[in-house]
Amino acid sequence: MAQIKKIGLFTSGGDAPGMNAAIRAVVRTAKYYNIEVVGIRRGYEGMINGELFPMDVKSVANIIQRGGTILKTARSEQFRTPEGRRLAYDQLVKHGIEGLVAIGGDGTFTGARIFGQEFDFPIVGLPGTIDNDLYGTDFTIGYDTAINTVIDAVDKIRDTAESHDRVFIVEVMGRDSGLIALRTGIASGAEAILIPETKRDIDALMDKLEHGRKDKSSKIVMVAEGDDAGGAFEVGRQVKEKFPNYDTRVSILGHIQRGGKPTCMDRVLASRIGSAAVEALRDGHRNEMIGIIHNELSYTPFEHACKHHIEINANLLKIVEILSI
Amino acid sequence: MAQIKKIGLFTSGGDAPGMNAAIRAVVRTAKYYNIEVVGIRRGYEGMINGELFPMDVKSVANIIQRGGTILKTARSEQFRTPEGRRLAYDQLVKHGIEGLVAIGGDGTFTGARIFGQEFDFPIVGLPGTIDNDLYGTDFTIGYDTAINTVIDAVDKIRDTAESHDRVFIVEVMGRDSGLIALRTGIASGAEAILIPETKRDIDALMDKLEHGRKDKSSKIVMVAEGDDAGGAFEVGRQVKEKFPNYDTRVSILGHIQRGGKPTCMDRVLASRIGSAAVEALRDGHRNEMIGIIHNELSYTPFEHACKHHIEINANLLKIVEILSI
Amino acid sequence: MAQIKKIGLFTSGGDAPGMNAAIRAVVRTAKYYNIEVVGIRRGYEGMINGELFPMDVKSVANIIQRGGTILKTARSEQFRTPEGRRLAYDQLVKHGIEGLVAIGGDGTFTGARIFGQEFDFPIVGLPGTIDNDLYGTDFTIGYDTAINTVIDAVDKIRDTAESHDRVFIVEVMGRDSGLIALRTGIASGAEAILIPETKRDIDALMDKLEHGRKDKSSKIVMVAEGDDAGGAFEVGRQVKEKFPNYDTRVSILGHIQRGGKPTCMDRVLASRIGSAAVEALRDGHRNEMIGIIHNELSYTPFEHACKHHIEINANLLKIVEILSI
Amino acid sequence: MAQIKKIGLFTSGGDAPGMNAAIRAVVRTAKYYNIEVVGIRRGYEGMINGELFPMDVKSVANIIQRGGTILKTARSEQFRTPEGRRLAYDQLVKHGIEGLVAIGGDGTFTGARIFGQEFDFPIVGLPGTIDNDLYGTDFTIGYDTAINTVIDAVDKIRDTAESHDRVFIVEVMGRDSGLIALRTGIASGAEAILIPETKRDIDALMDKLEHGRKDKSSKIVMVAEGDDAGGAFEVGRQVKEKFPNYDTRVSILGHIQRGGKPTCMDRVLASRIGSAAVEALRDGHRNEMIGIIHNELSYTPFEHACKHHIEINANLLKIVEILSI
Repeated sequence: MAQIKKIGLFTSGGDAPGMNAAIRAVVRTAKYYNIEVVGIRRGYEGMINGELFPMDVKSVANIIQRGGTILKTARSEQFRTPEGRRLAYDQLVKHGIEGLVAIGGDGTFTGARIFGQEFDFPIVGLPGTIDNDLYGTDFTIGYDTAINTVIDAVDKIRDTAESHDRVFIVEVMGRDSGLIALRTGIASGAEAILIPETKRDIDALMDKLEHGRKDKSSKIVMVAEGDDAGGAFEVGRQVKEKFPNYDTRVSILGHIQRGGKPTCMDRVLASRIGSAAVEALRDGHRNEMIGIIHNELSYTPFEHACKHHIEINANLLKIVEILSI
Repeated sequence: MAQIKKIGLFTSGGDAPGMNAAIRAVVRTAKYYNIEVVGIRRGYEGMINGELFPMDVKSVANIIQRGGTILKTARSEQFRTPEGRRLAYDQLVKHGIEGLVAIGGDGTFTGARIFGQEFDFPIVGLPGTIDNDLYGTDFTIGYDTAINTVIDAVDKIRDTAESHDRVFIVEVMGRDSGLIALRTGIASGAEAILIPETKRDIDALMDKLEHGRKDKSSKIVMVAEGDDAGGAFEVGRQVKEKFPNYDTRVSILGHIQRGGKPTCMDRVLASRIGSAAVEALRDGHRNEMIGIIHNELSYTPFEHACKHHIEINANLLKIVEILSI
Repeated sequence: MAQIKKIGLFTSGGDAPGMNAAIRAVVRTAKYYNIEVVGIRRGYEGMINGELFPMDVKSVANIIQRGGTILKTARSEQFRTPEGRRLAYDQLVKHGIEGLVAIGGDGTFTGARIFGQEFDFPIVGLPGTIDNDLYGTDFTIGYDTAINTVIDAVDKIRDTAESHDRVFIVEVMGRDSGLIALRTGIASGAEAILIPETKRDIDALMDKLEHGRKDKSSKIVMVAEGDDAGGAFEVGRQVKEKFPNYDTRVSILGHIQRGGKPTCMDRVLASRIGSAAVEALRDGHRNEMIGIIHNELSYTPFEHACKHHIEINANLLKIVEILSI
Repeated sequence: MAQIKKIGLFTSGGDAPGMNAAIRAVVRTAKYYNIEVVGIRRGYEGMINGELFPMDVKSVANIIQRGGTILKTARSEQFRTPEGRRLAYDQLVKHGIEGLVAIGGDGTFTGARIFGQEFDFPIVGLPGTIDNDLYGTDFTIGYDTAINTVIDAVDKIRDTAESHDRVFIVEVMGRDSGLIALRTGIASGAEAILIPETKRDIDALMDKLEHGRKDKSSKIVMVAEGDDAGGAFEVGRQVKEKFPNYDTRVSILGHIQRGGKPTCMDRVLASRIGSAAVEALRDGHRNEMIGIIHNELSYTPFEHACKHHIEINANLLKIVEILSI
C-alpha cells in the first residue's frame, strides 16, 4: 500500500473544548510524517461547499488552550442525501485528499460510517463532545472541561444559596445521558441528582426534601436536561408546589458549558488521540473511532462507538445517596 | 460623648461577593479599637428573632476570599411594621448594642433610615450589591466581581458562538440599572447592548443586524433584565422572527452572577469601607452610607444614597456604538 | 466480628486539593452507617499530642470545594520512634477509636503500616498527594487540580513569552516523579520536557534549540524539580550560556501548585474513596490503600502502594517529541 | 488642518493584559472614522526594521479577551540613538503614516516624547503596564488583571499555609512601586506588606512576628520586588534567622503576573482610551498620554506622565496595619 500523502480534517456537531488541541495534534503529527493537511470548515457542510484550505504548523500555533474550534462546525442536511455526499466526495478527490480525520460525536460518526462505505474512503474519528456518551473511550474530548465549568458555576450558586437558605434546581446538559449531572452533582455536594438513566428519581427527591435533615441551610438539586421529570423548570414547579415554604430557584446553566479553555486532561487526551489519528490512517485504519481506555489507545468501529445508553457506574449512584445525607 | 463599646453587624438584601471581606474588616477594626461586635444573622429578620452572637477575630478568619455572607441574609416583612422594628430594637438594647453597621443595598438603607430615626439609633451603611446602583460611591461591593463573572461566561459563549456562527442574546442582572450590561457588553465585544436607561434600543439592534457587517461570524447581544424590550427571551423571539436565517440562541446567566470569590478591587473596597464604618460610629456618624469616591472615603446620608437612576456615562454608550462596528 | 463503632481520621504529609472532599466523604459515610468520627489535627503529631475532637456532618459542611485540609497536616519526628507511636496508640485507645483513615502519601502509609502492625490496629489509607506517584490508583487526590493550576500558570507565561519571543524554563513539582511535568508539558505545548525518569534529556533540549524550527516565536521548557539536570535555574543557566541570543527566563511555580479549589475529578475521586474507606473498615479491611483503577475501587496493601518509580507511559513521551515539532 | 488619514500603532516595553483590547479599540475606531491603521511589530525596534503591515477590523477579531500583545513588544537600543530614530521616521514616512498611537509605560513615552519633538510628529500614548506607576490616569492597562492574578495565587498559597501553619514570604512585581503589593496585600489578608515607598518596614514585620497574635495559624508577608529590604529571599532569610521555630517559605510569583485574560475593568479601560486615542489624533492632540481619571478621559503631557513615585494613599497603608491585627 502506498503511503498516504494528504489528509482532510474537520470538526462537526456541537463544539467541545479541546477540539483545537486535537486539530493541532493532527496537523503537527502529519507534519512529522510529511503528510499534507487540508482543513475543512464547517464540517460536512463545508466539505460539500468546498471550504477547504491547506494547513501547516503555523495554522495551529497558540490554539491548544482555546475553546471552540478554529475549523468551525455546523450541521448539514445535504450530507444526509446521497447527492450531498457525492458533492463532498468530489471535493475530496479534487483536492487529492486520501483520508479523513473527523472530530465530533454520534452524528458525525454515523455520517462518516455511511460516507466511508459508500465511497470506500478511509476515515478515522475522534470523540469530541461534552456529553461523554460514546463507547470506545473512557472520556470524550470536552467532558472534563464541561464538568469543571459546571462545578465552578454551582460553587457560585452555592454561595448565594447558603446566604439565603435556598433550594436551587440546576439544569445541566445531557439530553440522553446523565454523566455530566452525575459527576458534577457529586462534586458539588448536591442533595439529589435527576438523570435520564434512572426513572422517577424525582420521587426520591421529594422524599428527601420531606424527610431529610432539616438543619441544612441550602440544597442543590442537579437535573440533566433529558431527565424524564422534564427539565429544571418542571422540577422547580413541582418542588414549589409541594414545599411552598422553601425559597426555591431554578438555574439553567446552558451554553456556557460548551466553551472555555480546555482542562489539562482534555488537552492531553486530544493531543494523544489527535496524534494517533494520523498514525492510524498511515497504518491503514479506517471506519474507527480512536479513544483512550485506561490510559491506552483504543480503536472502535464507528458502529459500536455510536451506541447510546452508556451504563452508569453503580458506585457513583450509591455515593450520591450516601453523601447527601 | 462616651466612647461606643459594642456594635451590631448584619448583611441584608441580595448577597454580594465581598460582603465577607467587609464583615472581616468591621470585626478586626472593632477589635483594634477595643469595641465588641455582635453578629446578627439573616438581616432585619434575625435581628427581630434574636439571632445574635458575639464575634471575634477568629470568627472572620479565612473568609476574605469567600463569596456569599457568613451572616446570611434575608428579606423581612416584619421589619416593615412598627411592631417588628420595636422587637428589633428590644433585641439591640438587650444585647447592649450601641450602634449598627448594615451591609446591603437600597432596601437595607431605607430600613436603616427609618429605624435610625424612630429609635434615635446610630447606624452606618456599607453598599453591598452587585448592581452598583447607589449614589455616594463609585462602586458597590460585589459589582466588580459580578462583571468579571459575566465576561467569563460570555467569553465561553463566544467560543461556541464563533464555532457555530451564532447570534447569542445574553441576559444579565439589572432590574433598574444597565451598569452590569454596559461594562460587560463593552468588555465582551458585544454587538449591541440593551439597557433600561435607553429606550427602544432594540430598534438600533434590529437596524444593526440588518445593515451591519455581514462578515462577522458571531454576534453577542447583551440585555439587562430590566430593559424595556422585555428580557432576553422576548428579544430573542423578535430577532428570530425578523431574521430567521440567523442561528439565534438565548442565555440567561442568572444566579451565578451573585457568587464566587471577590476580586481584588472588591476585597480592597470592602476592607476599606468596612474599617471606616467602625471609625465612623466611633466618630459619631450616623444615618450615612460609606463609600469610596475617586479613591477617597465618602459619607452620604441614606436618603441620598438610595436614589435610583444613576446616570450612564455618555462616553461608555458611545464606545459601544463605535467598537461594535 | 463486632461492628466498628468509632473511627479516627487525619491528613498527613504535604496537603493536596481534594483532601477536604475526602474528609467530608468519610464523615458523611460514617454517619450513614452510624459510626462516630474523631478528627485528628496535624497528622501523627496531633495524634501523639491528643489533638482529637468529635466530628459530625456539620463539621464538614461547605468544605468540598476548598483547598488545603481543615484537619491540618504536619510531619512528625516523634512518630518515627516506638515511644511516639506508643503515645499515639494511647490516645486512640483513650478515645475509643477502633480504626483509622489516613489521608496522605508515601510517608503517611509507611507510618501507617508500621503502626498498624505494631499495635494490630486497623488502618486504611487514601492517596492524597499532588505527585500521583503511588501504586494502586490511577490518580491520587490533588493531581488533577495541580496539573490544571500549572497549565493555567503556563498559559499566562505563554502570553508574555509570545509577546517578547522568549524562552521560558518553567519548574514544576515532582522530586521523584515527572508526572506533573509530563502531562502539563503536553497540555501547554511545551517544546521540551525534562523529567527524572529520563536521563540526560537536557541534551535533547539543546539539540532541539539548535536544530529545531527557527520561526517559533516562543518556547516553553518544562522541568520537574527532581530532574537530573538540576532544576530550572541550572537548565536556564546552561541555555543562556549556549544560546546567548535567546531571551531566556526562568520561572519556578512553587507552592501555588498545592492549593486551590479541587477540580471536579479530584472531588469525585476523593468522595468515592473517602466513602469506600469507611465501608472498608466496616468490612474488616486494614493495611490497605484505597484507590480507583479504571473507574473501579481497588485495594492495595500499603507496602505495594509505596513503591516509587511509576513507569511513564511510552505513548505520552512520544507525543511530546512529535507535537513539539 | 487636513484630516488625518493613516496612523501607526505599536506596543512597547513589558506586555500587559488588555493591550490587545486597546489595539482592537484603536483599529475599530479608526475604521469608524475612515482612518487607515498600520500595525508595527516589536515596538520601536520593529519600526526601525520596517515590520509594518496594514490592519483592518478582521485583524483584531476575537482578541479582546487575550493576554499579551498581538503586535509583540521589544526593547530597542537603536531607538536610543538619533540614527535609529531617523530610520524609524523614514519608515513612517515611507508608509504615509501621519500619527502614532504608542501603548506602553514610562520608557515608551520617554522615547515617544523625544521622537515627537525631533521630527515634529504627532504621537499619543496609552498607559499599558501592570505597575500602575504613571501620572495622568487612575489605573494603567493591566494593573487590575495583575492584582487579580496575584490574589488568585496567594489564595492558593494561603490554603497550603493554613494546612501547615506556615509563614509565606510572597514576592510580587514592582521595582519602583508598591502598588501591586499594597492592594494585593490588603485583599489577601496579608500580615505585613513591604514596599519601596516605606523604608524599613521590615522592622515592623519583625516586631509583628514577635509581638503579634500567637493564635494565627498562617501568615502571609507581601514583598514588592523593589523593596529596600532586598526581595523575598532576603526577607525570608532574615525571618528564618530570627524566628527559627516558624516554618517559613518563600514564593516568587514572577512572570505569571504579566499574562492571562484581562479583567472586565482592564478591557473597558483599554477600549475607552484606545478609542479616545484615535479621536485625540483627529483632534490634533500630540505628545500626550490618555488616561481615565475618576471615570472621565484625561490628557497628560508625556513629560508629566512619566514622573515616578506615585504617592501611596495613606488610608490604604493604615488599613494594612489595622486589618492584620
